[in-house]
Amino acid sequence: MTASVSGAAKDRVLIFDTTLRDGEQCPGATMTLEEKLDVAELLDTMGVDIIEAGFPIASNGDFEAVSLIASRVKRATVAGLARAISADIARAGEAVRGAARPRIHTFVSTSPIHLAHQMRKSEEEVLEIITATVTQARNLVEDIEWSAMDATRTPIDYLCRCVEAAIKAGATTINLPDTVGYATPDEYRAMFRAVRERVPNADKAIFSAHCHNDLGLAVANSLAALEGGARQIECTLNGIGERAGNAALEEIVMAIRTRGDILPYETGVETTMLMRASKLASAATSFPVQYNKAIVGRNAFAHESGIHQDGMLKNAQTYEIMTPESVGVSKTSLVMGKHSGRAAFRNKLEELGYSLSDNQFQDAFERFKELADRKKHVYDEDIEALVDQNIATAHDRIRLVSLSIVAGTRGPQRATMKLQVDDKVVIEEQEGNGPVDATFNAIKALVPHDAVLELYQVHAVTEGTDAQAEVSVRLSADDRSVTSRAADPDTLVASAQAYLGALNKLLSRGARLHAQHAAE
Amino acid sequence: MTASVSGAAKDRVLIFDTTLRDGEQCPGATMTLEEKLDVAELLDTMGVDIIEAGFPIASNGDFEAVSLIASRVKRATVAGLARAISADIARAGEAVRGAARPRIHTFVSTSPIHLAHQMRKSEEEVLEIITATVTQARNLVEDIEWSAMDATRTPIDYLCRCVEAAIKAGATTINLPDTVGYATPDEYRAMFRAVRERVPNADKAIFSAHCHNDLGLAVANSLAALEGGARQIECTLNGIGERAGNAALEEIVMAIRTRGDILPYETGVETTMLMRASKLASAATSFPVQYNKAIVGRNAFAHESGIHQDGMLKNAQTYEIMTPESVGVSKTSLVMGKHSGRAAFRNKLEELGYSLSDNQFQDAFERFKELADRKKHVYDEDIEALVDQNIATAHDRIRLVSLSIVAGTRGPQRATMKLQVDDKVVIEEQEGNGPVDATFNAIKALVPHDAVLELYQVHAVTEGTDAQAEVSVRLSADDRSVTSRAADPDTLVASAQAYLGALNKLLSRGARLHAQHAAE
Repeated sequence: MTASVSGAAKDRVLIFDTTLRDGEQCPGATMTLEEKLDVAELLDTMGVDIIEAGFPIASNGDFEAVSLIASRVKRATVAGLARAISADIARAGEAVRGAARPRIHTFVSTSPIHLAHQMRKSEEEVLEIITATVTQARNLVEDIEWSAMDATRTPIDYLCRCVEAAIKAGATTINLPDTVGYATPDEYRAMFRAVRERVPNADKAIFSAHCHNDLGLAVANSLAALEGGARQIECTLNGIGERAGNAALEEIVMAIRTRGDILPYETGVETTMLMRASKLASAATSFPVQYNKAIVGRNAFAHESGIHQDGMLKNAQTYEIMTPESVGVSKTSLVMGKHSGRAAFRNKLEELGYSLSDNQFQDAFERFKELADRKKHVYDEDIEALVDQNIATAHDRIRLVSLSIVAGTRGPQRATMKLQVDDKVVIEEQEGNGPVDATFNAIKALVPHDAVLELYQVHAVTEGTDAQAEVSVRLSADDRSVTSRAADPDTLVASAQAYLGALNKLLSRGARLHAQHAAE
Repeated sequence: MTASVSGAAKDRVLIFDTTLRDGEQCPGATMTLEEKLDVAELLDTMGVDIIEAGFPIASNGDFEAVSLIASRVKRATVAGLARAISADIARAGEAVRGAARPRIHTFVSTSPIHLAHQMRKSEEEVLEIITATVTQARNLVEDIEWSAMDATRTPIDYLCRCVEAAIKAGATTINLPDTVGYATPDEYRAMFRAVRERVPNADKAIFSAHCHNDLGLAVANSLAALEGGARQIECTLNGIGERAGNAALEEIVMAIRTRGDILPYETGVETTMLMRASKLASAATSFPVQYNKAIVGRNAFAHESGIHQDGMLKNAQTYEIMTPESVGVSKTSLVMGKHSGRAAFRNKLEELGYSLSDNQFQDAFERFKELADRKKHVYDEDIEALVDQNIATAHDRIRLVSLSIVAGTRGPQRATMKLQVDDKVVIEEQEGNGPVDATFNAIKALVPHDAVLELYQVHAVTEGTDAQAEVSVRLSADDRSVTSRAADPDTLVASAQAYLGALNKLLSRGARLHAQHAAE
């Protein structure tokens, strides 16, 4: 606990981010290893206390991601998830071993409906499992979180017995999740109060809230849990997660900061990094953020009605309870054009939070000059799109050499494409139902594969007709789904780049593609 | 108040939808008259109690929309907004006059910060204004709502005096909004309790909640207000509105329905229409819905993790607190192909909730056959995109005759376009920075105008490479901003159609375009 600026002592609330586990678990949000590392590093820099990096037993990819994040993260605790199964716990322990602050997070269902239908175990059997699995975990690392899955639908007496057993076996954090997003703030607060009052060894653990947003109450429930004695909140960037998602990290952090008068808590999160974190999570998952999303939506600080604008001009406080700057929103500034040099570009990258290697910088600078030749105004967003893509494509096996398209109302549309696959150059012309279909057919002819297109989406990076188009493509193959983005003033070139980006990601994950055929 | 199905008496909560006023007020959400009518009619059918149709003094367009909605809506009360200004109230009264159940909704700021900085009036002056304006309104219609703008930042003593004055002057509904999205549930509940206990004539009015989501608490605050005695909730479809938006109608309604055990209230809303209403609002505003948006997001009922899927297979209740069917979500079904006939198509349209005129049906059927020739599987979403566009383009002055495009990595990209403008056909070839820019340049050459492109966005209507592309374009001119969508398997054709759709909307609103030049 640290003293707040105002001098009054405020309780420290731990922020546990599960973007990389519960967030990544939702349909279509799969991230690559590189994307996960980027997110984890930003969370660490931003001051998040615990990063749940994945579910190590789920796949080798998950294990590798958790291990690598554990070895890279400097400050935050790194947690790995495990069911109440010996093999899960052993694997989670192995994955987080390299962390400066390792945590195993193990969970078991405690509600009657889960016990009866999913686990088919008695209450006594589950109590024994809790003792055994927490003990096993505690022999691997010191920091153990135990979760009572579906806690909000568990009778309080049995829930207290489970919590007591978990703490006795060595759990240092007790999480009581609202797994199905069913609770209201009063109920959730009361549950924490009751458990903390009734469990004899409750003072030996930190209590944690984990809320889902099915009824739109995730943030309110999380804050109510604090009043009930919880001191850790589990949340995700942009509120992504299973179904309607988790409590949004940015809303939790800003509610605590803005309403410090009646929520006497503090977090360690540097709020000016919230917008950047939101954008990174959105880019990594290709999940768009709703315009009116609280804190990080593009309209969150926009005032349209004349009445509000008038008030804003007279005194910002009339309609604004927090400043855009406090969450890292700055006005889009006209930054550079074709006459901007290396030093200016390097400064701008630093301002935007990038640190590139010399090679990456050289590539990015060349692409910037190319863009500046074609586009009158180069905005911060243009540069971010360019650099993000640059970093993503560094190790690609397939590269676009050239593309030409004939399209319009008098189909069929045609695409002629030249690719470099490893060290061979191949070329093909294909027709399609629209120019995008023709472009993708050309790729399929050159690099035969079974991946299925799950999502295709385009938006303009900045405003105006000469804006770069940013295209997201999601492909799935062999039960994996990967998303890739690319930006180019030509939508069709960006489409080809994004599709190839996704194929490259699948190749790097060893999917059964037949790219070799084309390259042989 | 009506008895619930279970036999226990539940208090009736009035649902006040302000999608067409507070929702439309947010940057970029402007709707056309036709779109507003569609939304109002759906809200009426769905069982919403009060529809706030607009702010009649704001513009002639707003006045016209409120008047027309007032004359069309059969069941719901139709409200028009007015500041505490005589001219506003007279205009609002005139606009809602034709309604079966007309309401004037007038508001004034009551918080010290608004009084000092925006209104520059004393507390006593504002009290006099309340009495005068509510009296004026009450002489025009019987149903008067009065709002204490920024109520949550108003000292309770002064707030009570204002409420008492408003009720005394004839207000039948008292709205206490959290204008800046600052309140927490406990505070908001306590404010309603205090006002209702302390104001002597409080029993003569219905109290209303109006919450903004700046801290992610809008739904929780609205539900807390019910416990404090409010019996009307103001909300919007998809939660759109100023800044972070309003409380989402669908979340409010489903929270009350799902948690009837501890929220003993009922609404008159038919929940199976919620998804359709969400889609209509999203189409009319072109605001996308976040994937993990509660109730209506595409992932809201999707389960990815193996553990959850396993539970779902064993018993849906293990992870689902409401069924997808209860909010009108059905599995996307493979519906039709090139061999489907008129009868099947007519049935499908009815199932999707459309009622088309004979001419509209004929047009839609022809476009469906055309699409079925090009696309293997025609899904519900394809048909919705096709019909929605069909309805939107019925009265257009500018129509696309043909478009051909040459594009790719070896620019410059070229577009050749033929348009019919009124009864003349014009043709032009233009280059551009990418094929979309070239297409838009061709339109600008054929129909010179000053409108600025504010948003350009593409997504696939359904999955797969032969999916139709749905393009949204937002243009602004003369302080108006309009959005249009179009769908076509060729992204570039859809882009041209969407841009032309937006231009047609601006033309129909009398914007100063120069389309005549081209047509002369």
